[in-house]
Amino acid sequence: MPVDQNAPLRITAFDWVPDFARGHVRDLRPRWACEEIGLPYATRLLSVTDRPADYYAEQPWGQVPVIEEDGLGVFESGAILLHIGEKDERLLPRDHKGRMRAVSWLFAAYSSIEPMTMELATVDIFCAGEEWAKLRRPGLLADAGQRLDRLEAALGERDWLAGSFSIADIAMVTVLRGVAASGLLERRPRLAAYLERGIARPAFAAALHAQLSDFQPEPVAA
Amino acid sequence: MPVDQNAPLRITAFDWVPDFARGHVRDLRPRWACEEIGLPYATRLLSVTDRPADYYAEQPWGQVPVIEEDGLGVFESGAILLHIGEKDERLLPRDHKGRMRAVSWLFAAYSSIEPMTMELATVDIFCAGEEWAKLRRPGLLADAGQRLDRLEAALGERDWLAGSFSIADIAMVTVLRGVAASGLLERRPRLAAYLERGIARPAFAAALHAQLSDFQPEPVAA
Repeated sequence: MPVDQNAPLRITAFDWVPDFARGHVRDLRPRWACEEIGLPYATRLLSVTDRPADYYAEQPWGQVPVIEEDGLGVFESGAILLHIGEKDERLLPRDHKGRMRAVSWLFAAYSSIEPMTMELATVDIFCAGEEWAKLRRPGLLADAGQRLDRLEAALGERDWLAGSFSIADIAMVTVLRGVAASGLLERRPRLAAYLERGIARPAFAAALHAQLSDFQPEPVAA
Repeated sequence: MPVDQNAPLRITAFDWVPDFARGHVRDLRPRWACEEIGLPYATRLLSVTDRPADYYAEQPWGQVPVIEEDGLGVFESGAILLHIGEKDERLLPRDHKGRMRAVSWLFAAYSSIEPMTMELATVDIFCAGEEWAKLRRPGLLADAGQRLDRLEAALGERDWLAGSFSIADIAMVTVLRGVAASGLLERRPRLAAYLERGIARPAFAAALHAQLSDFQPEPVAA
């Protein structure tokens, strides 16, 4: 059972977030990686409404996750996935060619797909009532659709982006979960199947359960 | 002189781009990394207006750069910077703690700063005449400004993000160059000085010159 408050690896997470964000906060990614390899981790829960001022020294934007392990601090979930991935070849191939294939796809998830999904979230959630968001939506969906068509073509008949399952899939599956509500995956059956394959993994379910279990029903007073 | 058409490392670049993109195409990043350590590289120039269909098998979105080296292919400039960085501690510390510090900042440039600068480019360049872009601009500038304030605070009095100069600075400096025109750095003197420090490096100037030298005056017919 990976959650173990005595584990040397500690992941920061929030103790409450609004409903729409539950199950989508990025500490899900390192939790999932730990679950895949049975690596115990502790949690350090923070208030999203009242972040400790000194936390910004650990994470420039006050976001989660950050990990700490034996005096090492790593921020940005992509960097954290790389750190955990390097512990176990079930997450990242050991041979340089396979490793760089997975790292290419890891950056693809973060640089080429997620920014588009974040823009969609801005339009559909954070600025949903604003005039610009209504005007922007059709063009953004069209651009995102083209990008996803290319992603689907690049995935081809493979189950996972870099051959075997890797940290790149943890990143890409969690990113694609964020666009599912937009309907963009409905006419892209191979991407939809890829997403289903990812979230069907027991380690994903365990990580999701662990994140959800850490949320309080209401914001916690500082 | 790093450009050497017989070098085992080959970087893809475009043989023509519109004026506004000259000096900003992302092959600048691996070129800069190679220049920092005197690593020779060859170029493989592609037409941006008529990309070879089989190039999408190397780069899912038909973008540059891709690198090839001894049968290894790496795409996404962040992954390429990591690959080149691992060759030389002048680009990436060898000790795990220092390395992960630089990798955290590398992902910060790609995941937390660049998406915002790309959104600004969409508003100010690609969709400049559109109504939604005019309505979106003030809020986007405010959000971007807050993010840059945090970046400036995190940089503090240091010259470089991760202590010594690293691939993280190659990423962040090239990202910040893209927002300079928006005026966002004018009231952030430490970030402006950081950008100046980056582009004052001889290796940056050599990389910029090399990219610009590869552009033809007009698009090349296929």
